[in-house]
Amino acid sequence: MNYPKTIKNLIECYKKLPGIGEKTAERLALATLNIDEEIIDLFAQSLIDSKTKIKRCEICNHLTEENICSICSDDSRINDILCVVEEPKNVIAFEKIGSFKGKYHVLDGLISPLDGITPDDIKINSLISRIEKENIKEIILALKPSIEGETTILYISKLLSGTNVKITKIAHGIPMGADMEYVDLMTLETALDNRTEVS
Amino acid sequence: MNYPKTIKNLIECYKKLPGIGEKTAERLALATLNIDEEIIDLFAQSLIDSKTKIKRCEICNHLTEENICSICSDDSRINDILCVVEEPKNVIAFEKIGSFKGKYHVLDGLISPLDGITPDDIKINSLISRIEKENIKEIILALKPSIEGETTILYISKLLSGTNVKITKIAHGIPMGADMEYVDLMTLETALDNRTEVS
Repeated sequence: MNYPKTIKNLIECYKKLPGIGEKTAERLALATLNIDEEIIDLFAQSLIDSKTKIKRCEICNHLTEENICSICSDDSRINDILCVVEEPKNVIAFEKIGSFKGKYHVLDGLISPLDGITPDDIKINSLISRIEKENIKEIILALKPSIEGETTILYISKLLSGTNVKITKIAHGIPMGADMEYVDLMTLETALDNRTEVS
Repeated sequence: MNYPKTIKNLIECYKKLPGIGEKTAERLALATLNIDEEIIDLFAQSLIDSKTKIKRCEICNHLTEENICSICSDDSRINDILCVVEEPKNVIAFEKIGSFKGKYHVLDGLISPLDGITPDDIKINSLISRIEKENIKEIILALKPSIEGETTILYISKLLSGTNVKITKIAHGIPMGADMEYVDLMTLETALDNRTEVS
């Protein structure tokens, strides 16, 4: 290959990103050469900052550049309802909807015995101690519908059995706007089981 | 949006790349957080190097980190045949095939009156002076089959009319392995016009 070393390096780096193969990486590396210098400088600085400045919130484990994230330090939010999610990007998704006014807890994974991920590997202990310390009334388990998700839900609800904390999980069913004939059978079955009365 | 500033910056930078929209940029920015620090350092350094180290070859205008690119400085290559291409990535494509043993000339564009690109905006003058100085016997015009490509071919061949330089252009026709019924009519017509005798 006749690329100068810098371009070869750029290609290798772009290839580390998910969904980017050899051809796309090559295209992106060449396109990089045409980007304005100030953007390139910001890009390089942001990459370095991503390793040095980005931390996890000491309370909820969400991404932040401070010790406490902007959601946890927002006094206008409801303090006794926690939405429990797998990853930081789930927090962002809920924040885009904007209707949830409580706070979050990022588990950073789901229990998965097959992958060797035990309850101690994810932020369940800190969830339990938050529930006690912050006097949480309800936790909404917004975890993906999978064996790992269900295992995690089961584990957390067993840990909290006997307490007064209300435990809910988000509804699974037919996505809004979906074409019925393309919905998979498991979703259809769940939707049937979770049917609600038409008022 | 509840992303820390660094992540917002990363998203904005990824969005400057071709074919990357808001959603993909977000996905890439979050994925960046999981990449090893040494790769991130190389990525940041390569971005800076792309502005400071990458130059154009003084002879053929290909990308290089030296004054003269590795192809131009390769004495084992044929010196009197030039393959004329639009962009550096075309050089890479030909080098991947590996069968062309001559040298290259990168025009950095094609003549396009509609876009205000005149012969003076691309590297045609340096091509003509190379042909004289390097005593070139043949130029292969490997330009894309478009109005701009054909205009550029016409312009260069007029400039060189009356000289002894052999001017060829690469064949246009049905791509190898293509399904006949999906080939567009213009390609089919070109393929018919350019038919060759079966020996």
